Amino acid sequence: MEHVDQEPRTGINPELARRVWIENVQPAVDGGRFPIKRCVGEEVRVTADIFADGHDLLGAVLLYRPVSEGAWQEVRLELRQNDVRTASFRVERLESYEYTIEAWVDHFASWQDEVRKKYQAGQDIESELLEGAALIEAAADRAVEPDRGWLIKIALLLKSAAAPSERVERGLAADLTALMNRYPERSQSSRYHQPLRVLVERIRARYGAWYEMFPRSTGSNPKQSGTFRDAANHLAYIAAMGFDVVYLPPIHPIGHTHRKGPNNTLAAGPDDPGSPWAIGGPEGGHKAVHPDLGTLEDFDFFVTEASRHDLEVALDIAFQCSPDHPYVREHPEWFRHRPDGSIKYAENPPKKYQDIYPLNFEGQAWESLWHELKDVIVFWAERGVRVFRVDNPHTKPLYFWSWVIAEVRRSFPDAVFLAEAFTRPKIMHALAKAGFSQSYTYFTWRNTKPELIEYVTALTRTGVREFFRPNFFANTPDILPEFLQFGGRPAFLSRLVLAATLGASYGIYSGYELCENEAIPGTEEYHQSEKFQIRHRDWNRAESLREYIALVNRIRRDNPALHANQGLDFYPVDNEQLLFFGKSTANLDNIILVVINLDPHHVHDGWVEVPIKELGIAPDEVYQVHDLIGAGRYLWQGERNYVRLDPAESPAQIYRLRRRVRTEQDFDYFM
Amino acid sequence: MEHVDQEPRTGINPELARRVWIENVQPAVDGGRFPIKRCVGEEVRVTADIFADGHDLLGAVLLYRPVSEGAWQEVRLELRQNDVRTASFRVERLESYEYTIEAWVDHFASWQDEVRKKYQAGQDIESELLEGAALIEAAADRAVEPDRGWLIKIALLLKSAAAPSERVERGLAADLTALMNRYPERSQSSRYHQPLRVLVERIRARYGAWYEMFPRSTGSNPKQSGTFRDAANHLAYIAAMGFDVVYLPPIHPIGHTHRKGPNNTLAAGPDDPGSPWAIGGPEGGHKAVHPDLGTLEDFDFFVTEASRHDLEVALDIAFQCSPDHPYVREHPEWFRHRPDGSIKYAENPPKKYQDIYPLNFEGQAWESLWHELKDVIVFWAERGVRVFRVDNPHTKPLYFWSWVIAEVRRSFPDAVFLAEAFTRPKIMHALAKAGFSQSYTYFTWRNTKPELIEYVTALTRTGVREFFRPNFFANTPDILPEFLQFGGRPAFLSRLVLAATLGASYGIYSGYELCENEAIPGTEEYHQSEKFQIRHRDWNRAESLREYIALVNRIRRDNPALHANQGLDFYPVDNEQLLFFGKSTANLDNIILVVINLDPHHVHDGWVEVPIKELGIAPDEVYQVHDLIGAGRYLWQGERNYVRLDPAESPAQIYRLRRRVRTEQDFDYFM
Repeated sequence: MEHVDQEPRTGINPELARRVWIENVQPAVDGGRFPIKRCVGEEVRVTADIFADGHDLLGAVLLYRPVSEGAWQEVRLELRQNDVRTASFRVERLESYEYTIEAWVDHFASWQDEVRKKYQAGQDIESELLEGAALIEAAADRAVEPDRGWLIKIALLLKSAAAPSERVERGLAADLTALMNRYPERSQSSRYHQPLRVLVERIRARYGAWYEMFPRSTGSNPKQSGTFRDAANHLAYIAAMGFDVVYLPPIHPIGHTHRKGPNNTLAAGPDDPGSPWAIGGPEGGHKAVHPDLGTLEDFDFFVTEASRHDLEVALDIAFQCSPDHPYVREHPEWFRHRPDGSIKYAENPPKKYQDIYPLNFEGQAWESLWHELKDVIVFWAERGVRVFRVDNPHTKPLYFWSWVIAEVRRSFPDAVFLAEAFTRPKIMHALAKAGFSQSYTYFTWRNTKPELIEYVTALTRTGVREFFRPNFFANTPDILPEFLQFGGRPAFLSRLVLAATLGASYGIYSGYELCENEAIPGTEEYHQSEKFQIRHRDWNRAESLREYIALVNRIRRDNPALHANQGLDFYPVDNEQLLFFGKSTANLDNIILVVINLDPHHVHDGWVEVPIKELGIAPDEVYQVHDLIGAGRYLWQGERNYVRLDPAESPAQIYRLRRRVRTEQDFDYFM
Repeated sequence: MEHVDQEPRTGINPELARRVWIENVQPAVDGGRFPIKRCVGEEVRVTADIFADGHDLLGAVLLYRPVSEGAWQEVRLELRQNDVRTASFRVERLESYEYTIEAWVDHFASWQDEVRKKYQAGQDIESELLEGAALIEAAADRAVEPDRGWLIKIALLLKSAAAPSERVERGLAADLTALMNRYPERSQSSRYHQPLRVLVERIRARYGAWYEMFPRSTGSNPKQSGTFRDAANHLAYIAAMGFDVVYLPPIHPIGHTHRKGPNNTLAAGPDDPGSPWAIGGPEGGHKAVHPDLGTLEDFDFFVTEASRHDLEVALDIAFQCSPDHPYVREHPEWFRHRPDGSIKYAENPPKKYQDIYPLNFEGQAWESLWHELKDVIVFWAERGVRVFRVDNPHTKPLYFWSWVIAEVRRSFPDAVFLAEAFTRPKIMHALAKAGFSQSYTYFTWRNTKPELIEYVTALTRTGVREFFRPNFFANTPDILPEFLQFGGRPAFLSRLVLAATLGASYGIYSGYELCENEAIPGTEEYHQSEKFQIRHRDWNRAESLREYIALVNRIRRDNPALHANQGLDFYPVDNEQLLFFGKSTANLDNIILVVINLDPHHVHDGWVEVPIKELGIAPDEVYQVHDLIGAGRYLWQGERNYVRLDPAESPAQIYRLRRRVRTEQDFDYFM
């Protein structure tokens, strides 16, 4: 409506004859260019600046609808301060929603306001009463019976010779206001200049505990690849730790040309299995499974077994090819050939991937390539996989992702996409805007208290939270962080609790529970990395963290506050090695407080400051904090309370805050 | 490009095959919904986040054009940090401009980068040299002679058997880079998803000193209305004070019905002239002049005389009518009639305007009304008026203003509109977005140091500055601020200097120079307000501030730093009653420092901190500050320097900072 372009004396665009001005509708990503994200059941709290000329009162509604519906639903916006209005709606269906704002001058409310003031000031209001009657009669014309009859009757009274007090009282009565609000005059209402969109996904897009494992390492013979059947036998172990997603590195045939040997060496021996990311061999490519793992039917069995254990299977989408991939021969047009006929191998400086060819997303044949890659994802979706961890998405075009993710979602709206993007922050954000459900983060390298607070606050307290959902991985086959290399078991415990409580989604790569911490010196690469060789582990070692992990994941499941990132806040504690934060549900019926000793080597203690005012606790009120890890229950009062954490025992405490209940029938008097 | 909506297997939107992603192009108002504002000659410094997948280097240009031109001009964007790029253009013509960003993968620059690294690392680059030759050959196909020949020759060399060192050197040479940059491969470039707009106005939209005066008060007989001829005689006095704009309250016939008497009384006597804002009588309405002031020809004479004095005339646009306005009789459809046939008078609570009818902007006849109101402005524009001060714009629809201002600008692109909007901040901002050139502000009520710093910083250091230009009025016929009522002459001096140096545009209402400060007790209304009666003043009183005002306005004219709001910054001074700030031009060739004693009653002194580092002055460098008010010249060194201001003399000092020049031919060695 701002682009005024009229010839003189021609008709004026009737949209300009609207009096209400609507601005700054939030949330919106890049002014509405991209959708915000929500999961089914979540609320969209909308605010807008709404005003008009003069002093009239306004009516305003938030309009929303699933995009498949033609009709808008609406809810009244409430005025806060400084011309800001707000309302919210809940996304209930697994499809995109739209929302926008409509507002109008509420002549009847303005009239009531004026009459109230003038009558109280003792002014003559005969003419005003006639005006009111006219407004009511106009509403009657829009109304149905019996409302219509009522409105006409009231209008007649206002025009009658009855006492002014009686007529004013009738005109200002709440039931009349409600009746009039049923038939507002909205023909001249203003609409925000664009609808905004919500991408709605299922809960797993926001919340889940991930466990990464190489199925080939689950066999009983350390010299031989495990199979999907072996991996299926391992699922009970993973499920017992309470994970939600079991994520497999690529399961496809692995190339032989330039196959990598142990520790990323260039010369593989005849028995070296190669990197699963060097996808494709004579046995097939991205739609095949490695023969050593079994058949597609074995894979289906694994998926079914996982489901039986309440585990979802996540597959790795790595759009690249070994030199032996069928595409190389059948579709040379999908690769970039150099003038000498060769294809350059992939590089992700300083890493070199001699065993991998990149695909050419911008070649002449880009369209057929894109369709094929979409088919790859659909192929696995049709086999029941709905979670995809995408390898290095930042080395493929952003618009490719926006296209392919939308395409897959059209058929599989429950598909979840995790971006493995360790790259520059704006590109990570752009991938999220392009449609990824969630993303790897820099959490893996944030160790100190200021680093953690700054980073996590930026993710959860800024506009970023509207489109970017973090998944905090504590380690990956590519990353054994320095902190884990040298911090021993306490480091593994504290990073686990940090990841699992700061992030609604988090993950570990197998071996974490055994505190595997041997790196290639001076790097974050695992020594004898499982990327290049089969690993064989004794899962039942006494020092395993499996019970601790199971406990933490159980705490996550039991406490809805830990299922979201939004209710997170950091609180003061007078020790730089102690991190103290809370997460709570919107209605405060689940309040979790977490305190973590970030120093794996020393006991630390200090005074935490509980934000009792925000939590609705009176200064003299005694409340209980129940340590869900150590099982201790403490009675606290006021803001400042003492904590002490010995990393050798548990570097973290996760408190459920319980308030005293009034009834004595409760066993422990706290809920 | 984000709205992906494709049927499977149909062609994919080719826009998606672009690799570069462009976000967050700034400046932009509300994500591009409204234009930014500039004056002719100003720079638009544009930044954008630009990136792509992978590690390729990018090319990017800022595109811009006056909207009447089809062809874009372009300038290369330079990379800053974190994927931000920037470039700027200058608006040279008095019309709207558009700007946007285009970016592409620069395969040749990426190739040079790769070859440089690999060659330095001693790697084999034979195949790379062939790739480079192919890129150069492709550019040759796009090139014209003689460039084409050169490129082919270089490509041949790269493919030859010459020494690798020679070929690499040739491939990386700067002249080849320049040649290649002449023929970039941009067929796959990305364009920002929308063009952004600049509303370009003339300098007066940003910079000017305004003087408001009632022509009827310029006669020689205090009992009788002055005329345009009298007012013309008064112009020399105004011009001598150095003002740029002389602004007249409405000059139209004044109604008799419910005419207001002195001090806003309801009963006017037969000789009371009434409020000029009660526009319209038997003699005419908004296109007529009050007979007591003279004829339209007399008005033309006044405009011509003003121009001779380098003064522009600003008229008051007050879209409202006295009950005697011809519109009331001829166009009853332009008013809101109550059921009893009456028209309600205007109110701007708590003010009541019994002598004024509002117009009905949303009635059935809105279209003919809007055209008529546009004709009113055009009528005066055709008589040579190009500056309009709009009365109470916030009581008329925002979209009306966006329409009428754009309409008038189409014929008179040099028209300047000042919004007299003392209303809620968001509405003031919306009026600016709707097209007003500048606006009254809350400056009038900002007195303390923290208030001034907070308010002026919000205007000049946030996104607001892209669309909202302040005009700091120190007083108006409606507002005699408390500070002036009780601060005496020092208050008038300090508020004058504040307005004139903080604001590129500022204004006073006549009588200010005489320190008129008699209010109706407990209000900000002038006693015996000129709104309701003719005032007669002795302009030559000895205590007049006219010389001081002339000096301040001369300082403004002489110093370009004071012509803009952008170069403003507040600096520390260790006294809460002293305000210290600076304004400088972008290239620092004009640096003004201002220190003001905000306390009209006491002498204050303190240590100011000059930001010598920002100003490029070495810690041991002696610089001169030349007090342009008191004419003193001081040699300062380092950051902290002493100041002392006696409000009884002058509560302000305006320093021009001069640096020592190297030549001794300058009289004072400082420039």
